[in-house]
Amino acid sequence: MILTATVMGLGMHHGAWRYRDGDPFDQTDPAYYVQIATTAERGGLHAIFLADTLDVSEERFARPNLGALDPAVVLSVMAAHTERIGLVGTSSTTFNEPYNLARRFASLDAMSRGRAGWNAVTTFVPAVAGNFGGLPLPAHDERYARAAEFLDVVIGLWESWEPGATVGDKAGNVYVDPSRVHALDHVGPHFAVRGPSTLPRSPQGRPVIFQAGASEGGRELAAQYADVVFTAQNTLAGAVEFRSDVRRRAVAHGRPADSIKVLPGLLPVLGSTTAEAQRRKDTLDELRGIGPELEKLALRVGVPVAELDLDRPLPVDKIRANAGFRGSHGFRDAAVGLAEREQLTVRELLYANGGGHLQVVGTPEELADTAQTWLEAGAADGFNLMIDAFPSGLDTVVDHVVPLLRRRCLFPQDYAGTTLRAHLGLT
Amino acid sequence: MILTATVMGLGMHHGAWRYRDGDPFDQTDPAYYVQIATTAERGGLHAIFLADTLDVSEERFARPNLGALDPAVVLSVMAAHTERIGLVGTSSTTFNEPYNLARRFASLDAMSRGRAGWNAVTTFVPAVAGNFGGLPLPAHDERYARAAEFLDVVIGLWESWEPGATVGDKAGNVYVDPSRVHALDHVGPHFAVRGPSTLPRSPQGRPVIFQAGASEGGRELAAQYADVVFTAQNTLAGAVEFRSDVRRRAVAHGRPADSIKVLPGLLPVLGSTTAEAQRRKDTLDELRGIGPELEKLALRVGVPVAELDLDRPLPVDKIRANAGFRGSHGFRDAAVGLAEREQLTVRELLYANGGGHLQVVGTPEELADTAQTWLEAGAADGFNLMIDAFPSGLDTVVDHVVPLLRRRCLFPQDYAGTTLRAHLGLT
Repeated sequence: MILTATVMGLGMHHGAWRYRDGDPFDQTDPAYYVQIATTAERGGLHAIFLADTLDVSEERFARPNLGALDPAVVLSVMAAHTERIGLVGTSSTTFNEPYNLARRFASLDAMSRGRAGWNAVTTFVPAVAGNFGGLPLPAHDERYARAAEFLDVVIGLWESWEPGATVGDKAGNVYVDPSRVHALDHVGPHFAVRGPSTLPRSPQGRPVIFQAGASEGGRELAAQYADVVFTAQNTLAGAVEFRSDVRRRAVAHGRPADSIKVLPGLLPVLGSTTAEAQRRKDTLDELRGIGPELEKLALRVGVPVAELDLDRPLPVDKIRANAGFRGSHGFRDAAVGLAEREQLTVRELLYANGGGHLQVVGTPEELADTAQTWLEAGAADGFNLMIDAFPSGLDTVVDHVVPLLRRRCLFPQDYAGTTLRAHLGLT
Repeated sequence: MILTATVMGLGMHHGAWRYRDGDPFDQTDPAYYVQIATTAERGGLHAIFLADTLDVSEERFARPNLGALDPAVVLSVMAAHTERIGLVGTSSTTFNEPYNLARRFASLDAMSRGRAGWNAVTTFVPAVAGNFGGLPLPAHDERYARAAEFLDVVIGLWESWEPGATVGDKAGNVYVDPSRVHALDHVGPHFAVRGPSTLPRSPQGRPVIFQAGASEGGRELAAQYADVVFTAQNTLAGAVEFRSDVRRRAVAHGRPADSIKVLPGLLPVLGSTTAEAQRRKDTLDELRGIGPELEKLALRVGVPVAELDLDRPLPVDKIRANAGFRGSHGFRDAAVGLAEREQLTVRELLYANGGGHLQVVGTPEELADTAQTWLEAGAADGFNLMIDAFPSGLDTVVDHVVPLLRRRCLFPQDYAGTTLRAHLGLT
């Protein structure tokens, strides 16, 4: 079982800043990240995962994200204080230049000695476009077309130095073998990039590619390029269907089915008893209030807040009929599906919904049971843990969930190697 | 006296990779940078400075730059292993988006607790444009017009959170005071950026701004925006003139003359005797050969290599007549001036020239003497040391030059505070 841990602000739960001890702006202090990284590494987690935030308008209300730093900077600090754990950062294909991004992640791979991963996203928050020229966010298909070309360029740059290019023969005065360093000369609809990379081949060949799109375009992109796919799934059947579909598509692209790993998000709220876990959840919910979640749900389903009545069902038909929707299909469909299936009011949905992700409020045993069930049903290769509040949420995973999973022989006793690629069993 | 140390590959001298012990690709390993940063901090140096390289064509020949990493990633690793030293990274205003860049350097400032600096450059290497769309590098004036607007946006984003915005009142449930977080709503010829920043105000108010342009446009940009100016000067009179000019321009922009610090580059090649220093220089030169330097000189003066005859004078008239020159005026003028003044052949220029910078081949005393003379003549507020080969070149500075300067009361006994701004005496 693969386990990654998402670090978003002070925790995924918007009540985290009031719930936890410590400074309410700890997410701007390096010690906070070093503690998280060393704890996660002590637990043998495969990787730390950082989302990306290119706009503050959503975060005014969704507090854990406030103060979002550049993931590459935070991951570099974490790299400097760890030896094994993978370091995965999100970066947008819509709002970056591929040459810069390729160099940044290759640099992180070098500075972590082979532990870097890039989560390629196309960015679905419309307000972000206001910080990058002010034109509207490009439509879904256009974003994905650019993403595919962007990935081609980035991978091409990462591959531009053959393994034997770095000769370094001091006596013979041969530093590099230029015949093993290749220009890319890419010219396409979105990019013209000559190459090669400024950096020799990275320690793990190339950084691991993560992707999280759930739409048709997203699934195709994942099947073609991704080593790991994050997904928001809140039913076992849906997760099984999604994983089979992605693996089938990967095979259609000539890849072995096992070369692509599927990690549903999993939001644990843990206690030593179920009742204690529920008290943690209730306290977090009460500290948060409902406003921030309502704002976030409105954004994710693409309707104004004013059209969401807390005590009535989600306006599912209206949401589905929105042809101009430019957001994440994965998050929208997960929320709509859950509301419909379980006949939830908006209020009930807000408390039931782990941001579209599977949520387990319970004991470490209950979490391990759910994870095991999903793994054995073929719903997942592992999970991306969305920690509710740091550090306690992560401490419980490392100290109580990981040992259980190890006793069940579901989780490695130690890191398989020194690179993220090795931890994930990728070649 | 302010002292910063440039880290470029394995050292500024292109023979460094053969001269030094250690792996010839140490510049891709984190331990290399951690050692440099801790040594420099032990010596009380004000800051580490990293150049930026967005293209490998020049580096094929100029070897120390080969394998150039993203400065923000390297500086973040250094930040994680140091407490006081400033961390300055170069980043191009021509090939970045201001929102991304502002966030990156604000993140570095947070992760270093107030030690970040940004060296704003417009990029003068024509080949870089081939990695960013393939259009020709914009002309000099256009690059500087974009740079000025870019700086306005970045500074605006850094200032978008007032100091009191981060309330963090857990009991009262007030996280941020939105009335103290301001949109930028910038709309200009090059950029439209709504803002605000995703990050609260940085630990030192805002990162320190460095700049290095020597042309009319560069000097004006510096006078308006820069806290620190790097410059290539190889005569005392030229340096005095440059510093007076920049200070005069700053005053014309309503700033105190002392609010802008001028740091000429200084390339020390040190030994315990003058003869030993000369042997170090000769060995480095011999190991390098002349080819890489000739390539670099050709690029810097804007003529093909074939037109440079090693045993004849530099074709000064032809160089000056090149109206289409898009490179760095500072580097070109320094090389041309030196060749003309001292009637040097191309070969002599290559050995005399510290890449346009002042070069001292001698003892720590001789270096301290020169530095003191320049400081007292008003030619400099300090120096940007271009270390010839790591780690020995830096070790000698820290162990032998710094103690001398301290005995002469020219260099602080300890760091003045915890931020780069404090070290530099800036408000």
